Amino acid sequence: MGLPMAGHLLEAGYPLTVNTRTKSKADDLLARGARWTDSPKSAAQQADVIFICVPDTPDVEKVILGADGIIHAARVGQIVVDHSTISPSATREMARQLAERGATLLDAPVSGGDVGAKNATLSIMVGGDPSAFNQVKPLLERMGKTITHCGGSGTGQLTKLVNQILVSITNLAVCEALTFAMKNGLVAHKTLSAVGGGAASSWQLLNLGPKMVDEDFRPGFMIDLQQKDLRLCLQAASEAGLELSALPLVHKLFNQAQADGHGRDGTQALFDAVRKRAVSDQ
Amino acid sequence: MGLPMAGHLLEAGYPLTVNTRTKSKADDLLARGARWTDSPKSAAQQADVIFICVPDTPDVEKVILGADGIIHAARVGQIVVDHSTISPSATREMARQLAERGATLLDAPVSGGDVGAKNATLSIMVGGDPSAFNQVKPLLERMGKTITHCGGSGTGQLTKLVNQILVSITNLAVCEALTFAMKNGLVAHKTLSAVGGGAASSWQLLNLGPKMVDEDFRPGFMIDLQQKDLRLCLQAASEAGLELSALPLVHKLFNQAQADGHGRDGTQALFDAVRKRAVSDQ
Repeated sequence: MGLPMAGHLLEAGYPLTVNTRTKSKADDLLARGARWTDSPKSAAQQADVIFICVPDTPDVEKVILGADGIIHAARVGQIVVDHSTISPSATREMARQLAERGATLLDAPVSGGDVGAKNATLSIMVGGDPSAFNQVKPLLERMGKTITHCGGSGTGQLTKLVNQILVSITNLAVCEALTFAMKNGLVAHKTLSAVGGGAASSWQLLNLGPKMVDEDFRPGFMIDLQQKDLRLCLQAASEAGLELSALPLVHKLFNQAQADGHGRDGTQALFDAVRKRAVSDQ
Repeated sequence: MGLPMAGHLLEAGYPLTVNTRTKSKADDLLARGARWTDSPKSAAQQADVIFICVPDTPDVEKVILGADGIIHAARVGQIVVDHSTISPSATREMARQLAERGATLLDAPVSGGDVGAKNATLSIMVGGDPSAFNQVKPLLERMGKTITHCGGSGTGQLTKLVNQILVSITNLAVCEALTFAMKNGLVAHKTLSAVGGGAASSWQLLNLGPKMVDEDFRPGFMIDLQQKDLRLCLQAASEAGLELSALPLVHKLFNQAQADGHGRDGTQALFDAVRKRAVSDQ
């Protein structure tokens, strides 16, 4: 994700310094004029705005708080934008520590996938100080189409988790409906078009439904990453004292899909796990 | 539903004979030129095509197989179109009995609600003999916009149940996501617009989400009717040897909503039951 996103900033004429864990991944950006630097800390020494895009909470903690982390070069007025999807409470704690140095952390997770990153059509959900948000908004608009300031620190992450709860349970709706349809001998593609235009309609139905029917499990968004996000959802729900039903259910079913070897398949492979268990549980 | 649907046939110039359990409900149609008749049987004696629109399986069985039922006047070439949402297996059995008299039953449940019935924008999912379907298609086109022939007898009902599985589990996705959002202090309407444009989007989110936030539980589609349909889904799943997870879960949660007095509220009142239990289950 980070590569095309950084590329849009470069294209727009912003001077760009990059650091990645695997340097070869930055080759394309370096060839196009970006400068290399050896650590998050040295990147922070050279930049007014620092963008982070890594997989999970511990990765962001290492980039910000680690031995070579941003915090050791943080200064007043500096803005750190974290595009990773991570824990809202860990986000608030890192924002607090950066604020002690005068720097501002904005949580800014994205949705829209690889395609959205390439085409600069991402949805970006931002939490944190509103004036810092307004300062970096022109930069975010180079990378995304729907930029929402959701509220204080952590609210961008929480909004992204709301998104993931919707995405995963709606996906499960499609899996169970198609399992029911196909086991009852309905012509699946015809069923999809009969129900796709009304109250049953969803992005998941229209986009993943046909792939489920065709057993095309190539990833848009991988199950392993969906599960990482669902763990964040469950953790945040627990921290808020919430007991949900469908969220843990879909997490369990994705676990079964992973156990079946679908971890690196797209989330539509949930269908395979749901169907298998629905039919064999007799 | 039946009143506006029959009205479209009358408007189109078809001669119409009506029978309803409560005669006053037909007053509007009679004032507009429809003829009254005293039973389904006498309606069948006068008509080439008979439309049924009643609540549940036993109601249709009474209209077709009862003492004054259609079957006692059924004749070769006659077509019976059932717009009710009922059991697919009961449908197939009634189709078999009508076929013994030479008549054809088409199951033709609709979706799109009161508004769709009034505006003739219903989706109509039809199962049964294709040539009978082609004969009545011009009539169905007076009442609906998306007319799909799904396959043999019962497949219209099965397709409608697929629709209801999607609708109810997607509804649950919105309930849990909004419960999560509001308990975490997010501004709910802002959250809806931040996530409503991408992979999390659904008809349920866009149409019922704002009503949930505003606690506007006035019915579009009533929970009592949704539960009737979900019982049909569970029964048909069981008959097909299917063990689903989210479908029984959402049925249980709608039970709780009914126990809370939401039976005659719209399906968006599921939110109230989900939120109450999510917060109190500690």
